[in-house]
Amino acid sequence: MRIAIDMDEVIADFSEKDLRTFNKLFNKEVTQEEVGNGYVTQKYPEYEDAMVFIRNNADFFRDMKVMPDSKRVIERLAKKHEIFIVTAAMHFSNSIHGKIDWLKSNFPFIDQKHYVFCGDKSIINTDYLIDDSLENLRVFSGKGLLFSAYHNLDKDYDYIRVNNWLEVEAYFEEKGLI
Amino acid sequence: MRIAIDMDEVIADFSEKDLRTFNKLFNKEVTQEEVGNGYVTQKYPEYEDAMVFIRNNADFFRDMKVMPDSKRVIERLAKKHEIFIVTAAMHFSNSIHGKIDWLKSNFPFIDQKHYVFCGDKSIINTDYLIDDSLENLRVFSGKGLLFSAYHNLDKDYDYIRVNNWLEVEAYFEEKGLI
Repeated sequence: MRIAIDMDEVIADFSEKDLRTFNKLFNKEVTQEEVGNGYVTQKYPEYEDAMVFIRNNADFFRDMKVMPDSKRVIERLAKKHEIFIVTAAMHFSNSIHGKIDWLKSNFPFIDQKHYVFCGDKSIINTDYLIDDSLENLRVFSGKGLLFSAYHNLDKDYDYIRVNNWLEVEAYFEEKGLI
Repeated sequence: MRIAIDMDEVIADFSEKDLRTFNKLFNKEVTQEEVGNGYVTQKYPEYEDAMVFIRNNADFFRDMKVMPDSKRVIERLAKKHEIFIVTAAMHFSNSIHGKIDWLKSNFPFIDQKHYVFCGDKSIINTDYLIDDSLENLRVFSGKGLLFSAYHNLDKDYDYIRVNNWLEVEAYFEEKGLI
């Protein structure tokens, strides 16, 4: 079986790095609780343009935290299935090298040939896609799992929701797939 | 309909740039006729390691020639179909920015969201793939068209061969698809 896995907010904690960077560069102490469901620039739109520049930098990705349990669960899945990391880096094209380095360093067991950088996930031909973006899941032709992130918490969607990697593991265990 | 199109040797004349660069940097005057079916480094393997470094550079792609008729034919196809540029840049990861710039400048009518960088084209979910690589066509799930390149000229394969973009145009015209 073939499983495509999104990167930002699914295996890499983009929100945490984004807020940490915002606080550091603009000398603030904003918490995710204050931000609510979404990104810090939705609360502080006057910083949006600056943050777009800041995110579009290879270094922005280098010390991004790995989502809890993702490495262990994906390593388990990879023993039985083909794993592809499918990430939209076209908006932040300078981030591609940072993302490649991050993946090589944190998920060394995934073949670099299985990295996919694309802007439209309708192109992806796999059985599963684990993604935090409704937009991506809607155009995907296989089975989509919605990975919880701040920006998608406030609504009920027609996808199976997984709140963390333990739930992903339980989902595939229940199906007898790991 | 959705059509995936490879980049090197299909819309971008990689071989020509490769040989031109080799001749310039190593002060030679090798012709493609002398090289035969393949790349210059197959004839001069002692330069292989150096050429791998040289190709893995954003600038290597910037002045690559556009394949004759490709722009006009793809622009025609794009009026009726979704076009994706699918290129394997994982081996030459530094080349990604050069490739993005080249595509934006030479094929501005293709949405950047339709660029796909991947190492394994089995992931691609489109109706067609136009590619010079047998390895890519073999793993592709849709209909493959083999685009002629020096390295694939010497064998007969089980794919429909297109020798240039006029033949691609004729193929889709005959099917009533443009």
